[in-house]
Amino acid sequence: MNWKTIATEYISKHIYFNARKDTCQKPDGQIVDPYFVVEMPKSVCAVAITADDKVILVKQYRHPVGKVLIELPGGFIDEGEDELQAIERELLEETGFKFDTITYLAQTAANPGVLNNYTNLYLATGGQKISEQQLDANEDIEMMFVPIDEVKKMLLRNEFDQAMHTVCLFYAFDKLGGSK
Amino acid sequence: MNWKTIATEYISKHIYFNARKDTCQKPDGQIVDPYFVVEMPKSVCAVAITADDKVILVKQYRHPVGKVLIELPGGFIDEGEDELQAIERELLEETGFKFDTITYLAQTAANPGVLNNYTNLYLATGGQKISEQQLDANEDIEMMFVPIDEVKKMLLRNEFDQAMHTVCLFYAFDKLGGSK
Repeated sequence: MNWKTIATEYISKHIYFNARKDTCQKPDGQIVDPYFVVEMPKSVCAVAITADDKVILVKQYRHPVGKVLIELPGGFIDEGEDELQAIERELLEETGFKFDTITYLAQTAANPGVLNNYTNLYLATGGQKISEQQLDANEDIEMMFVPIDEVKKMLLRNEFDQAMHTVCLFYAFDKLGGSK
Repeated sequence: MNWKTIATEYISKHIYFNARKDTCQKPDGQIVDPYFVVEMPKSVCAVAITADDKVILVKQYRHPVGKVLIELPGGFIDEGEDELQAIERELLEETGFKFDTITYLAQTAANPGVLNNYTNLYLATGGQKISEQQLDANEDIEMMFVPIDEVKKMLLRNEFDQAMHTVCLFYAFDKLGGSK
């Protein structure tokens, strides 16, 4: 079922936004033209639990949907980092916490019809505060510390809009034995 | 925490791809420039179960990730349709099945950091085949009929890559009483 890319042209090359227009050929010879792809780096996020059993959630404004969302900490992998280094760094930067264990849960693709990237999902436990938040220029993030059971209720009430984070929460609760 | 959009410019206006570059102002007055947004219509998908308790899955090639993925049936809302009409139409077009009941589960945003759309998630039950698949030009979809318990195992083994569909499956199993 796989397609061949026979031509490609960038319609945006920008540090924050790479998009290209491909011409593809299907196995039956049919041409698909254009097919638009937005290129994004691999990303990571985690259900991050403190040593006193609170889940660290982050509230931030998401301009594309025009809403303040309750999300999990996470972000893009930097050049030269592996996924585990990235989630450790992102957790430290966004929350100021360091975690005893970080367990890989699953991977997910937010929208493989238009975005080319995957996100690695983790469960981090035993979090201890070791520094203050160190946020990027556009980041304006408010932390919330919520008991695990309450987060599970929020999940079942559909209070997490961001699909990758919802997926991470379901796998984390499965791992924690709470949703089996 | 909400931003004001003070300027906007389309970098792509195409029937299959609308992207814009916004200049925004944060509540503290700071300017964010540029912020890129990809505009997509609202979409729908469903865990669709036949009258003989099989889940209808669809295999299709997803060019941005270069892989054949196992997904749920679904698609974009057409002009003038509501969400329920859209999921009924998509299920009929992609599978040829009509369902006794279609229950709303939740909504999700695939990636609210770059995409502006939401997806409504449904559970459809009592499916009966009433016609053949009627696919769009670029659609090349292979149907699979998988027992509910096996789909749950596939979900926990991380065999569904597409985040919105993974979310839909978790909510559907919660509704069906299998993951409480």
